[in-house]
Order: sequence, then structure tokens, then C-alpha cells
Amino acid sequence: MINAFHQIDEVIHQKIRLGIMSLLAAHDSAEFVELKEQLQVTDGNLSSHIALLEKNKYLTVHKSFAGKRPLTTLKITKKGRDALAKYFEVIKLILEE
Amino acid sequence: MINAFHQIDEVIHQKIRLGIMSLLAAHDSAEFVELKEQLQVTDGNLSSHIALLEKNKYLTVHKSFAGKRPLTTLKITKKGRDALAKYFEVIKLILEE
Repeated sequence: MINAFHQIDEVIHQKIRLGIMSLLAAHDSAEFVELKEQLQVTDGNLSSHIALLEKNKYLTVHKSFAGKRPLTTLKITKKGRDALAKYFEVIKLILEE
Repeated sequence: MINAFHQIDEVIHQKIRLGIMSLLAAHDSAEFVELKEQLQVTDGNLSSHIALLEKNKYLTVHKSFAGKRPLTTLKITKKGRDALAKYFEVIKLILEE
């Protein structure tokens, strides 16, 4: 258990970031506003967590427009998907004994 | 996934507290010094997380002496064990889809 504990990915092991990554893993991509609604967080809070995930290359951020409305689309990367899978394995190792 | 997300127990969903609870679940009880060594944390850090878990009645703290040496023993409660089991179910629901 203890070896697994020290392998916990702290980038993912935070409630909002786990929510973002899980939603992206399930849907491949999502709009900023969708994540905000689903996770019930403020713009600023969501933005800071997305920035950290982007910095770690777990997701990509694409900004565009839908008519005049700005549209921010998040997409999970291969690295992010792998990190999420590993995170789950680590948590299982910690908790299943 | 999103319903499970909102059920994450934030008392447990913190790396050090998850480590404490998992070690106690595996061994039923543990000494403060053992937890400190296993989790590689400072006295102050470990104490503050134990205090929060105690406040939530997830563990009990028993202070005694081994000769002249103070001995602090932590024991998981039924409530703590149930909370940990539920936490694992919630994480599985979030990540297994």
C-alpha cells in the first residue's frame, strides 16, 4: 500500500482536477462552460485547475468563437489519459487491500 | 460520473489523510511514529490531518507511555472504515466509465 501511496499523482488527486479529467476521459472533449456547470465551480477556480493540467500536458485548450461568443474547448491528451489510468491503478492498490 | 463526483468525501480525498486511513484500515491501529515514517511527513503536518480525522470520528487517538516515552496510538472507527469503503466506491464510479 505504502509504495502505491507515494506514487499518487498530485496533479490528478485534487477534486476539481479529477472531475475535469474524468469528464474529458468520458467525452474526449468538452466546452469550458459545460465543465463549469457540471462541476459547479467558478470561472477563476476552473481556469486555474485547467492551467495546471495544461502545463502538465494532460489536456489541450483551444479557443475559438461560436458566432460572437467565445468558445473554449478542452481535449484530453494521450498523456492525460495514461496518467488517469495509472492514477486509478494506484488508488486501487492503496484501497483494495 | 458527475453524481459520484459530488459525493467525494473531502475528508478522505487528501493525500496524507488517504494514507493515514488506508494504513489504519490495513492494520486496524498504528502508532503515530509509524505513520510518520511510512507517510514521510512532519509531526505538525501529520497531527493536523489526524485532528481533522478525529473530529470527523474516522479514528480515535489514545495517548499512553511506553516506559518514559509517550506513545500515541491511532485506531480506525467503524464510521471511518465505512467512509473509506464508500470513498473507494465513489472513485470507482468516477473512473471506471
